[in-house]
Amino acid sequence: MIKTKATGPIPTGFHAIDGELALGGQTASALVAENGSPLFVYAKNRLDDRMAQLRAAMPDGLDLHYAMKANPFPPLLRHMVGLADGIDIASGGELHMALEAGAAPDHISFAGPGKRDEEIEQAIRAGVTINIESPGECDRALKTGGALGRQPRLAIRVNPDFDLKGSGMKMGGGAKPFGMDIELVAPTVQTILDAGADWRGFHIFAGSQALSADAIIETQAQTLELAARLATEIGASPAHVNLGGGFGIPYFPGDEQLDIIRVGRALSDQFAQLPDILTSTQFAIELGRYLVGEAGVYLTRIVDRKQSQGQTFLVTDGGLHHQLAASGNFGTVVRRNYPAAIANRFEEEPAETVSIVGCLCTPLDRLSDNAAMPRASVGDIVAIFCAGAYGASASPANFLGQGPARELLVD
Amino acid sequence: MIKTKATGPIPTGFHAIDGELALGGQTASALVAENGSPLFVYAKNRLDDRMAQLRAAMPDGLDLHYAMKANPFPPLLRHMVGLADGIDIASGGELHMALEAGAAPDHISFAGPGKRDEEIEQAIRAGVTINIESPGECDRALKTGGALGRQPRLAIRVNPDFDLKGSGMKMGGGAKPFGMDIELVAPTVQTILDAGADWRGFHIFAGSQALSADAIIETQAQTLELAARLATEIGASPAHVNLGGGFGIPYFPGDEQLDIIRVGRALSDQFAQLPDILTSTQFAIELGRYLVGEAGVYLTRIVDRKQSQGQTFLVTDGGLHHQLAASGNFGTVVRRNYPAAIANRFEEEPAETVSIVGCLCTPLDRLSDNAAMPRASVGDIVAIFCAGAYGASASPANFLGQGPARELLVD
Repeated sequence: MIKTKATGPIPTGFHAIDGELALGGQTASALVAENGSPLFVYAKNRLDDRMAQLRAAMPDGLDLHYAMKANPFPPLLRHMVGLADGIDIASGGELHMALEAGAAPDHISFAGPGKRDEEIEQAIRAGVTINIESPGECDRALKTGGALGRQPRLAIRVNPDFDLKGSGMKMGGGAKPFGMDIELVAPTVQTILDAGADWRGFHIFAGSQALSADAIIETQAQTLELAARLATEIGASPAHVNLGGGFGIPYFPGDEQLDIIRVGRALSDQFAQLPDILTSTQFAIELGRYLVGEAGVYLTRIVDRKQSQGQTFLVTDGGLHHQLAASGNFGTVVRRNYPAAIANRFEEEPAETVSIVGCLCTPLDRLSDNAAMPRASVGDIVAIFCAGAYGASASPANFLGQGPARELLVD
Repeated sequence: MIKTKATGPIPTGFHAIDGELALGGQTASALVAENGSPLFVYAKNRLDDRMAQLRAAMPDGLDLHYAMKANPFPPLLRHMVGLADGIDIASGGELHMALEAGAAPDHISFAGPGKRDEEIEQAIRAGVTINIESPGECDRALKTGGALGRQPRLAIRVNPDFDLKGSGMKMGGGAKPFGMDIELVAPTVQTILDAGADWRGFHIFAGSQALSADAIIETQAQTLELAARLATEIGASPAHVNLGGGFGIPYFPGDEQLDIIRVGRALSDQFAQLPDILTSTQFAIELGRYLVGEAGVYLTRIVDRKQSQGQTFLVTDGGLHHQLAASGNFGTVVRRNYPAAIANRFEEEPAETVSIVGCLCTPLDRLSDNAAMPRASVGDIVAIFCAGAYGASASPANFLGQGPARELLVD
């Protein structure tokens, strides 16, 4: 008897039509019949709902930015440009995509530890805010602005002296390649002011993918305190402070939704007691995965069903070349099962224990390990949930000559 | 004081010109000046030398196949088609590339657990050997051959009842999605023979990336024994047996070169005492990484040098989007340092401990952790070695809007 391993919780709000998982009013099998397999489907209404919930929960006046690295699919990005108050980019390539998607340059900010000279030049020409990551980068930006005869818009990315507890990725608290250590911030702002450039404020990002409201509340409080301390040292109010993100989504068995109501209330309380030096500051949070992750589903057709030594394998035409993180090969130490289902048997009860693998000829290509599923056959469709963020663009699409999956934004 | 972590052993045979790492007679900085950064450089003479060493070590008459999944870069693939006795493919995409590169269809074989119907059709039309992974796939191939009026060339991929000890990836010994369990082999061959299709023999692949000659010798002996046992059960000699690969290359501190002389001698001894049923069989081994891995170097320019809390970071314009495995995020549990150098200071002594990171805005993007290096500045070039296999094509090139690196085959 094979021991069943749990799969992660399927995000709430997915419905069935004729017993099948449906997205945008179409069944999984209709979507695959029309668009092919494998297929990423992103649901517009889920993007809208998530943003509306967040606006309701967060303090009035807080800007909500979309970190497009989570999902740069052009139709989805265009939709997010309409929903979000700003777009955060991480490369010259993303700058190009954000402008194409209609983002206003003065609502774009650019962070990244290794900006090339030409990327800095593109950013200054476009008039977007550059989050400066080191004194050396500050010099390059000022020099480039001078050569172009343009006043660059520069914020300081700070390496905070705390981290986001329980976060999947720590980006502060210790020696880091991101941002600059606290003692370098005031002198660098002075350099910017002396050069006559436009100092835009701070970008302080302590970590990502946290599910604990307490941890995020604590980090936001520390971030505000740090921003006030730095502003006081500089003797000037920052126009803008990006408080970072860190809002996670549940992927794995036992994970629970982040309580954004509590996070929003605590942040409102903080805003009610800001020190004078921050009362004129515009604040933002920067979210990627939280805004788009649960809106996406990856659909992949079963091409073989086979037995080996008493175990059942469902072999699909997709795999880690589109779903690197779900395969357990991207930043995870212990592989756990993402939420998954047999999409065209969405309302059937589990009837067997199966491992769902991809089509790649490598043991790394596993989508679900010993999961309880309804009995599935060749031609049935597997759904992997939480596929809206860090899926298509964060996977090696060309591995083994496979190529990218089709992506689709549905109403 | 930062504790230095060792880097893997730089493959022997790399030389310096004017103190710089040189490939194809050009210095690293000349290569980057001409072709841009980041850049994969593959050295033709290293491919030739590796194949020549292998031919000298292995028994006469053994076919040496190239598993193109390791590196499908078209100019390199064309060169490997000229050097190898066969090309092993893993998808319809690779079939197309192999034919474009000039491989003869009767020297191509196709393995992969999730072959789509259209891939099976393409393979039969082209006349390549399909390694059948399940009874269900056998039925699909026979049906497709019938519909096309073509006699398919079918070998059986066997899930062996042993694994390759100490291998990085076990592909046999237990319940597996690859190949079919031993008891299914004879009945499936009978189905092929009854259908009048061309039964080509066996494909038996027990694992990859082993550095122990003893482990490979034992696995090859077990593989021959299994092939003989299956042939006897079937009552017919297999025309061809692919003995798999498994030859690893050193990546990490303490790793040592595989002793191919010992492996070759042991295999010659085995061939000298083959049972009658295998004396007319053509044998092959299938190697990817071993043939091309050490021939490639990844060059990436330093765009920032920064301090954080006493640690030094060299930030490059490359990263995990081209070098996923070197970043420690592909099939590894504990991150260790690949062999690395400051390419344009190749003959300088180490002078400091630095972490070399990529340009991506994620803590996963680390190329070398606390490594001892000569003192490097912005504009210097980092070399990551062992970049010839599972580099460019096995990494998420479009992550964070970056795009692929240029690749170059040099004489």
